[in-house]
Amino acid sequence: MIRHTVAFTLRHAAGSPEERAFLDAALALAGIPGVERFERLRQVSAKNGFSWGFSMEFADEAAYGAYNVHPVHEAFVRERWVPEVAEFMEIDYVAI
Amino acid sequence: MIRHTVAFTLRHAAGSPEERAFLDAALALAGIPGVERFERLRQVSAKNGFSWGFSMEFADEAAYGAYNVHPVHEAFVRERWVPEVAEFMEIDYVAI
Repeated sequence: MIRHTVAFTLRHAAGSPEERAFLDAALALAGIPGVERFERLRQVSAKNGFSWGFSMEFADEAAYGAYNVHPVHEAFVRERWVPEVAEFMEIDYVAI
Repeated sequence: MIRHTVAFTLRHAAGSPEERAFLDAALALAGIPGVERFERLRQVSAKNGFSWGFSMEFADEAAYGAYNVHPVHEAFVRERWVPEVAEFMEIDYVAI
């Protein structure tokens, strides 16, 4: 199992319709083959500056790789992520 | 549910007995009341510099707060975390 997470902030104002639209659009990622346990999360620690997070799991590297090049993922990155995300950090975990 | 995560690097060499001892000592945290789904994780993304992660969940803020001041947690922070961790970032999530 590989858990892919990304913490991020949006260019949109907190509570804005644009923020809600972005988070709703991200649900499309959950339908990409190989994506398991997709979660949209609010980041609540005061010890970093991120406001949101996504988390998803893949069975293996092949599933993760297929997600990365899936047209739905590539369209989301191009049409929503790049123009609307201000800062982000990707953190990926495997169990030990 | 609050998911408390921390990504970190150790002062120890990769694969060293000291690294293993630190990761083993951290299992004590799993026994603190209120800690659910405790995980020790290897960080595998090349997009950040962290090597390890812990993840745990709490039912609510009260359980998280009790963990923070629990003697086993405070001893781990004082005796292992502060002297052995080089860099870290805490990220906490709640579902939306």
